[in-house]
Amino acid sequence: MNDSYLNFVNSPLGARLARSLGLPKPEVLRRYRADAPEFDGIVAVGAGPSPQLLDAFADVVAHTGMTSVAHSGAGLWVPLANRHGLMTGRFEPAERTGGSQARVRALVFDASGIDASAQLDSLYRFFHDALRSLDACGRIVVLGRPPESRATPLAWTAQRALEGVTRSLGKEARRGIAANLIYVAQGAEAGIEATLRFFLSPRSAYVSGQVVRIGTAPFTPAPDFDWTRPLAGQRAVVTGAARGIGAAIANVLAAHGAHVIGIDIPSAGDALDTTMRQIGGTALAFDIGAPDTPAQIAAALDELGVDVFVHNAGITKDKTIAKMSEAAWRDVIDINLSAQERIDDALLEAGTLRNGGRIVSVSSISGIAGNVGQTHYAASKAGVIGRVQSMAPFLAQRHITINAVAPGFIETQMTAKMPLALREAGRRMNSMSQGGQPADVAQTVAWLAHPGSAGVTGQLVRVCGQSLIGA
Amino acid sequence: MNDSYLNFVNSPLGARLARSLGLPKPEVLRRYRADAPEFDGIVAVGAGPSPQLLDAFADVVAHTGMTSVAHSGAGLWVPLANRHGLMTGRFEPAERTGGSQARVRALVFDASGIDASAQLDSLYRFFHDALRSLDACGRIVVLGRPPESRATPLAWTAQRALEGVTRSLGKEARRGIAANLIYVAQGAEAGIEATLRFFLSPRSAYVSGQVVRIGTAPFTPAPDFDWTRPLAGQRAVVTGAARGIGAAIANVLAAHGAHVIGIDIPSAGDALDTTMRQIGGTALAFDIGAPDTPAQIAAALDELGVDVFVHNAGITKDKTIAKMSEAAWRDVIDINLSAQERIDDALLEAGTLRNGGRIVSVSSISGIAGNVGQTHYAASKAGVIGRVQSMAPFLAQRHITINAVAPGFIETQMTAKMPLALREAGRRMNSMSQGGQPADVAQTVAWLAHPGSAGVTGQLVRVCGQSLIGA
Repeated sequence: MNDSYLNFVNSPLGARLARSLGLPKPEVLRRYRADAPEFDGIVAVGAGPSPQLLDAFADVVAHTGMTSVAHSGAGLWVPLANRHGLMTGRFEPAERTGGSQARVRALVFDASGIDASAQLDSLYRFFHDALRSLDACGRIVVLGRPPESRATPLAWTAQRALEGVTRSLGKEARRGIAANLIYVAQGAEAGIEATLRFFLSPRSAYVSGQVVRIGTAPFTPAPDFDWTRPLAGQRAVVTGAARGIGAAIANVLAAHGAHVIGIDIPSAGDALDTTMRQIGGTALAFDIGAPDTPAQIAAALDELGVDVFVHNAGITKDKTIAKMSEAAWRDVIDINLSAQERIDDALLEAGTLRNGGRIVSVSSISGIAGNVGQTHYAASKAGVIGRVQSMAPFLAQRHITINAVAPGFIETQMTAKMPLALREAGRRMNSMSQGGQPADVAQTVAWLAHPGSAGVTGQLVRVCGQSLIGA
Repeated sequence: MNDSYLNFVNSPLGARLARSLGLPKPEVLRRYRADAPEFDGIVAVGAGPSPQLLDAFADVVAHTGMTSVAHSGAGLWVPLANRHGLMTGRFEPAERTGGSQARVRALVFDASGIDASAQLDSLYRFFHDALRSLDACGRIVVLGRPPESRATPLAWTAQRALEGVTRSLGKEARRGIAANLIYVAQGAEAGIEATLRFFLSPRSAYVSGQVVRIGTAPFTPAPDFDWTRPLAGQRAVVTGAARGIGAAIANVLAAHGAHVIGIDIPSAGDALDTTMRQIGGTALAFDIGAPDTPAQIAAALDELGVDVFVHNAGITKDKTIAKMSEAAWRDVIDINLSAQERIDDALLEAGTLRNGGRIVSVSSISGIAGNVGQTHYAASKAGVIGRVQSMAPFLAQRHITINAVAPGFIETQMTAKMPLALREAGRRMNSMSQGGQPADVAQTVAWLAHPGSAGVTGQLVRVCGQSLIGA
């Protein structure tokens, strides 16, 4: 739970030692705090030819109260920003101003109009000029169009190339900077705000190297909501809520205004009660794996319904397959995957999960890349990815979204028990050079649960600090 | 080029030392040799409920002359094998036979009928019993159905879960064993042989943790061909053929019977001439990036046409984006990506690339995961992925396939110049604990260029020994 190396190299003595020894110095990540402004600072705006998303982005800047500066490649921004009543200026690279250029909190590049590989050089010019002006823990967001939606192979290819740029920027930038790519479908422009806010906010501290699509499913327009309490009046269920990541998810959803119903196994009843008492939630003691649990959950929730369901409960029983018992295999698959299927089906059949609702499942890097001793666990977590992909079109009819998050190395009681060398490798093998916090996963879940995230469905988002480990 | 650690720990003294010190002992991979049988040894066959691919697989076993044994879960195999005139027996786990069970060269599991997560336990039973009987440098192949083709979310999810199992098996098995997952579309059963042969052969020594789809595009039925010289009578172009991976590709395609036309820059003319002379090929000195090169290539090839085109030429100019020149960005994007687009377009327009032909492009792990100092290179290589995805449906009309390979750490002159620590990390951070050889990439290209690979298109296959490094 406690990364003593991170703490040490960020102490005055430790920083001096690390510097003289050439040791890596992971940044203390800037995370969301209720008592600090979420969106302060300057965003530098860049653009390729014929940018199509600047108008929608100007709305986000206006609503969040950020200040903006335009790179010379984004000439359209200044008049557009003026039209939105924004204060804006011109971005000057530090070398041209003798270092007097104000540092910026975020770099946002609109690549939506790029339709040939040669035009990618517009990204070069912006990031070449601007990357060094970006604050520690800053944000890089590249906006594009879904490659497969482009009319020509040349445009598809150029949009697909953005992944390579963005992921490389994340690895180069270091200093706690996160870089992500958002593909916005034609017609989905009005639906970008919740996602843009998340990726510009300290809430996304440990989400980097990700590719997110915002689509135009025929969703109910998001109702009016308060950006500070977007889940006010909603009911959210979190399984495995007693401790760790589940408790963090419960906390963040409650802070977003939801009434949280926490579920955990009866033996964790005390911890669950404590967690729920702290957030004014409701504790339900159920064994997720029991055959009658889905019906019981549906019955318990039936009268008031549910808006958000977070499948977080999961177990590990690591063992190589040659040494594993069949019971261990069955338990892991059943709790981590089959039980989710049974519960969803029961809630959907009973209509307990409301139209326009949200399902978020917790997958894992193991489900993407596999892992030693986790044939069953990786199967269950890869299955979770299949689950959200397969259910998304089906649930779209009810305007329900379903997505998964895949935590990388997150500091929990579980990782605290790992052998030191393994734990240190997990902590350092990512662009943040540190493990994430349960709250990082929880904030990501809250973004997906947000009423403004209606266009995001069937997706997998890693919360891994851009972990090296992948497929 | 020379992995001295690998050599040392496989010497008598080194092996003893490594054992007593607990050092990793990477296996000397069994690779294809013209003077050794390609398919000897026993394949153990397992299956889930209602397996649908055993019949097609029995053909492959019959044609290759392998011997088979059936796991108790694959009861259908024995009568089916008899029908195909195969020698077959029953697989008994080593513990039940007191260790007398013959060791096997491959484990093949037909998971095509699995349509619910609970049925995944059939994989447990097979691999629990059989994994320890698998030879060093053995093969694991799991056969499934494309998840998105399944009728229900439950079946889609269960098929998707196979990825987690297969990738974990690859990481657990070690000892030079490769594990891959092949999704066979309904109706594509007759098209599996070339792919199955590749994944069972020593040719796929460094390909592990991959997911390949065999589809049913309306392709010309593969003409009669000789499995030992499948490209006989064909003409294959390889760019960047003078040295390294390109020369290896030229060699393997020539060994497959193709007349190879090698292209490289004029300054590499001597090396190109030497490489081409050794394989009876034709050398063409062209600068890939020059504007008139596409037309010149088309003109040079026009009379006889081309069956296979391999885009291998590429350059690196590593530099962080803040320090990179705009010329470096442009050169890397142009040579590695835009030039391919121009050449393809010229050849397709002129009809130089024959209907039923093959395009194979060399991408990179950097194109998947990004890399420090490679914003431009990663963009170009991510673009290559977009290129094959975007062109595949378009080229299907001409029965042309297009695919990409992504080499991981391959031992070349380039990697020989890397700093030691970086080189050692690259070598060890994969399931084979070693770098690959240029021939490993070349064999993979040859599989994709094979007349029997008509159902494989729009795909990316990593040649990385199941590198940890991913997206």
